[in-house]
Formats: sequence, C-alpha cells, structure tokens
Amino acid sequence: MNRLLVLEMIRQHRPVSRAEVSKLSGMSATAIGRIVGDLIEGGLVRETDQYSSGVGRRATMLDIDIHSILSVGVEVDRNVAKIGLIDLDGNIVAQRRYELDRSSAQPEPIIGMIADAVGGLAGEQGLDMSKLIGVGVGMPGVMDPASGTAVFSAQMGWSNVTFAPMLAEKLGLPVVLDNDLKVKALGESGTAAISGDSKTALISIGSGVGSAIVIEGKIYRGANNIAGEIGHSTIDPNGKLCECGKRGCLQTYITDLAMLQEAGQIKPVASIAELVALMKSGETWADNIIDRACTYIAITINNVVCTYNPDTIVMAGSFIDIDPEILERVRGKLKEFIWEPFVGTFQLTRSRLGEQAIMIGAAKLALQQYLGNGLIQQ
Amino acid sequence: MNRLLVLEMIRQHRPVSRAEVSKLSGMSATAIGRIVGDLIEGGLVRETDQYSSGVGRRATMLDIDIHSILSVGVEVDRNVAKIGLIDLDGNIVAQRRYELDRSSAQPEPIIGMIADAVGGLAGEQGLDMSKLIGVGVGMPGVMDPASGTAVFSAQMGWSNVTFAPMLAEKLGLPVVLDNDLKVKALGESGTAAISGDSKTALISIGSGVGSAIVIEGKIYRGANNIAGEIGHSTIDPNGKLCECGKRGCLQTYITDLAMLQEAGQIKPVASIAELVALMKSGETWADNIIDRACTYIAITINNVVCTYNPDTIVMAGSFIDIDPEILERVRGKLKEFIWEPFVGTFQLTRSRLGEQAIMIGAAKLALQQYLGNGLIQQ
Repeated sequence: MNRLLVLEMIRQHRPVSRAEVSKLSGMSATAIGRIVGDLIEGGLVRETDQYSSGVGRRATMLDIDIHSILSVGVEVDRNVAKIGLIDLDGNIVAQRRYELDRSSAQPEPIIGMIADAVGGLAGEQGLDMSKLIGVGVGMPGVMDPASGTAVFSAQMGWSNVTFAPMLAEKLGLPVVLDNDLKVKALGESGTAAISGDSKTALISIGSGVGSAIVIEGKIYRGANNIAGEIGHSTIDPNGKLCECGKRGCLQTYITDLAMLQEAGQIKPVASIAELVALMKSGETWADNIIDRACTYIAITINNVVCTYNPDTIVMAGSFIDIDPEILERVRGKLKEFIWEPFVGTFQLTRSRLGEQAIMIGAAKLALQQYLGNGLIQQ
Repeated sequence: MNRLLVLEMIRQHRPVSRAEVSKLSGMSATAIGRIVGDLIEGGLVRETDQYSSGVGRRATMLDIDIHSILSVGVEVDRNVAKIGLIDLDGNIVAQRRYELDRSSAQPEPIIGMIADAVGGLAGEQGLDMSKLIGVGVGMPGVMDPASGTAVFSAQMGWSNVTFAPMLAEKLGLPVVLDNDLKVKALGESGTAAISGDSKTALISIGSGVGSAIVIEGKIYRGANNIAGEIGHSTIDPNGKLCECGKRGCLQTYITDLAMLQEAGQIKPVASIAELVALMKSGETWADNIIDRACTYIAITINNVVCTYNPDTIVMAGSFIDIDPEILERVRGKLKEFIWEPFVGTFQLTRSRLGEQAIMIGAAKLALQQYLGNGLIQQ
C-alpha cells in the first residue's frame, strides 16, 4: 500500500524531490528512499535532470514514467466485454469492445476474446508484453478475489467459475477478479482516495441497486466480498415482493425495471430515457414515478451516509446519467431525509468516468496488486 | 498496528518463540525481531527461561508480562461514570463506579471523579502511576478522537467540550475519547478481531439504535466518526415522526421508549423488564409489541449485513440482555429477512462483556494508541 501511496504522490506532484514526498506522505526519509529505490528499479519512476530550487542541498527531482508499465482493465457483463490498456495516469491508451449474446457470454469465449484483445492491442501499440503488469476484471455478482472465482453471477448465469486462473493461464499474466461495483468505486475514488484519508461510496442504480465503498484507496469487501449489497436491505416489511423472495427490498422501488413496470400500468414504456422524455413533456404520471424514485434514492443516500459516513458519494447508473436534472431533484429531497449531524459531511457527485469506470477501476486494482504483492521485487 | 498484532499473538500463544510468531503473523523474522525488541524494552514482553522443544536450534520462548502496564478504561453517560484499570489480558484489575445526576454530569465534576478514581485505584493496588499507559473514554454522542472533543452529545447535554485534553492535563496521562458504541464494539471484537481478518459489527438497542464495526481490530469511523448511526436510517418515508424531525427512522420502531409508548396505549408500563414479564404472563398485546420489535431487529440485522458484510454480529442493549428468548425470537425471524447470499456468513451472538464492554473497549483503544503512537519508543 505504501508503494502505491508514494507512486501516487510522485504522480500528482511531479517533478518532486524525495524530501517533499517524505513531507507530503508523513513517512520517514529512510522509508521513502527504500520505496523510491524499488519504484526506480521497477522502471515506474525515474530521476530527472532537474534539481530542486531554493536553499539547502540540491535534490534530484523524481518523475513518473507514465508508460513504463500498463495495466489491463476488463469489464464483463451479460451484454458487453470491454478491454483496455490503462497507463499510470489512469488514461486509456487503447481499448476494444465486444458485444456479447447468450452464446458468447460464456467463460471460454470471453477468455478467448480478452486474450485476443490484449495481444492485439499490445501489437497495435508496438508494446512488449512484459510492459503489461496484470489484468483486472470487474464482473457483476459475488466474486472471490482471493481465488479469482466468479462464485455466483445471476446476470452471467454463472456459478463457481474459476475465471481469473483460467484467464491467467491463457495470458501468462496475473489476473485479479472482483465485483463490478467494487472496482467501479475504486475507479471513481480517484487520486484523493489514495493519498488522503478519504471514504468514497458509490451508489449505483440500474438493473439492481448496489453500493461499494473505498476506504483510503482500498476496496472495503466485508467478510465475503459482498459488503454494500444494499439492494436487498429491507425498506418495508410489508412492501412489494422482490425477485429474491423477500418483501420490500430497496430495489423493488428504484430499479429501471421497477419504474418501467409501474409505467406499464398507464402505457408501455420501453426505456428510462422514454420515461424521462414523457416526464419532460408534462405527463404527470411519469413525473410521479420519477419523483418517487428520487425520494427513495434520497433515502438510500441517507442510509448509506448513516452507515458508512463517507466524505464523497458518487451516483452512477443510467437513470442518474440520463439527465442532470434527476440528481438535482434528488439533491432537493435530501433536506427532508438526511439526519442533521450528517448535513454537510459529504459531497454528492455524478460519476466522473461514466462508462469507462469499471474498466479503469479494474486496471487500478491490478496495479494495486502488482505494487502490493511486491512483484517489482521484495 | 503491527505491535498490537505481535503482542496479541504472544498473549494468545504464550510461551511462544519468535519463529512461531513470525509464522503465525506472516511477518518476516526481521520485522518480528524488531517489534519484539520494542515490546521487551517497553516491559510488555519478556524472555522466559524455557526453550522450544523439537528439532532445530533451541529458541528462547517469549511470554507477556500481563501487569507490566495497565490501561485505564472509562465509561461515561448521563447516569454513571465507571473507571477501571485493565490489564493486557483485558481483565479488570480494579474499578470504581459513580452515579451521576444532573449537577454531577458536567465536564468538570466528571474529570475530577476520574482523576480521583485513577489516583485512588492506583494507590489501593500499590501501583506506580508510570505503569498506567493512558486513558480511554467512551461517551454517547458525536466524539472527535483526533482532537479529543465531545462534539455533540444529546444525552450529556454537551457540545464542543474538549474533554480529553482537559482530563489529560489533570492526570498527566494521554487520553483518547471516542463514541461509546465504537469502543464497545472494540471491546466485544475480542482477540480474533486483532489477529485475524475479522469484521465484527455491534448493534445496540436501548435509548437509541446504533451500530459500530471493527475491521481487523480497528474501529471504522467514517469521515466524521459517525459511521454506524443506523438509528436514523429511514425505514418508512411515511412512518412515525422521530425526535430528529424526520419520518420513519429505524429508531422510532425499536427503542425502549418506542415500545413503552406503544404499551401505554393499553396500560402504563414502566420498563422493558415489566413489558417482557407481561408477555410471559400471556398478554397478547405485550407479545405483539415485542414481536414487532423483533421483526424490526431482524430487518436491522439484514440491513447491517447487506452493508458491512461482517462475520460476527454482537447484539447489545437491555432489551436483548433481559431474556435470552428475545434473541432466539429474532433468530427465528432472520429466515424471512436475510438475503440468501448472506445466509451462513455471520455468527449472531449476545454481548460477551455486558455492562463492562465500554470500559474494557475504551482501555483497549488507549492501549492501541499507546502501541500505535510508538510511545514505547520509535
């Protein structure tokens, strides 16, 4: 974790001296010296020919070598596989995208696609494969990063698929597999989350409702990597029956499907975009459906704030992304639902990385593993 | 944190060799050598005259010196101040208890009481004050451990009281102040939480409803040390008005007061004990009130499990403690409310330390600070 922190400091403040990094990080000069040595040997950091200005001994400045290594980020869901090469700045150097259908959304074909894409992308970029430090994969469902197994994914229709080891064998690269929302939160948590004492919670609303929290740059997993599954927290013991068999789960109120089903009582509506358009054209019933969803989103935010006490909440999902007005409506309702001691304790924002967040977050997780496992050298 | 881990390993496995500690902790022999050196120099650990048996080089065994240092644990609420000297095994060596009333539940008198008690207890035990490494205080409300300030405590009627610095000055000892439930969870988290990869959540039901989580031996605070305040999570947007001004907060369903108020519609009931007695004597209405509380407790457990994914849930509070049957009734309802992927992921238990949990947990926090701040030596 310290390697990552030092790398992040250098990245943000480059060019920067060892002494400044020590001051910024609060770590001892000895520790910084050792870690910077590791990073230089690993080719991630280099000494520049610049020197610090000002009084005192001249110090060599450090810079980061953004393209010294690349990390592969992969997003897989029922409909799509996205594979990207991501640099140390979190930028996408190159990417491929495959549409999936029922026959291709199986472990073997997806692993083949990813392997082809990684080889193809590296070839196009004229990259030596040794520059790729590893692969991170974000997938919906219960994932076990320790064994790299997709334990259960309703969306993929998979259970106990040893996805990461299979892909690692095919590629000859380390692979880390995690839940899509968890890596998305890691992607969104940005640089502040690594260098500071930050707690970023992501709330996602779409086919389900979920959350994830990144604490000081690290995904909080809970005992079984299923922390944050708020979609099945109970909001009303006498509420609507959920697909999980319980009553009144949060996600019976605010998923896309729940809204479209309700709309269907008036007229068939095919998408959230259509529902929002109907609201904008003045249909009161569409406005009512959206308004109630916004109320439950505000409640969800309160409940997430009461448990995790984050400093940042990132809202993600098509309903939120479709129109900035939605989040503003939610914001307006927060007054009514946020408990007073929490007022002003958090920033509420929309996703910064949008559609790329899972891929970028997965690549970041692979980088964390690489640095944390001491793959540079011990 | 590593010092605490090593100390805990030695405590649990004593007598134990450095090599075994290294093996158990997964830390390098060098790191263990250095930390054990610190602990020996600090007087917490000593070399015994036993040697490891078996093949290979004979190794000196380490033991812990349980009474080498003591930590002071303090619980303060509106009604009572408890002060205890706690040893490295988490046992109470000596304690005092003061009943408080409106005039004595003020910062100055309480600080005086604690100082008197610490001096008096040390004197009775024939202890040199230098054996006391610090004081931990658990108090209801929003506490800021960084500055030692009681930011806001509705129960005490305090705001922005710089309690820890005031007490530290009076005693000449480091003082750490924290929220009562947070230190209680730390106390209950036991030794497993320190040595393992454990996540212990505490849910407390009494004058309010709250929770706290200890992640790998460390209290999770959130951004403002108010993580876990689930009493004001919204269960029903159209529910009863809460004292906080919002509608349908969880604590409008299951606090002692909420139950007694409901009972009052039938006849005046003075205490939860009386209500439980009425249930046991066959009063259906008393049974209904208790049954609904149990339903909401089961819902609360589900919601805590969905967010934190703990491996252990400790239930605390008078309602739970009054009769083992209550927790069994809650357990019976879990089937209906726990989302399937979480079934079997956690142990549900009653408080192990009961009335002493806050005091013992506060002392443990003081010990963590002592070891973590390198007060032994750097």
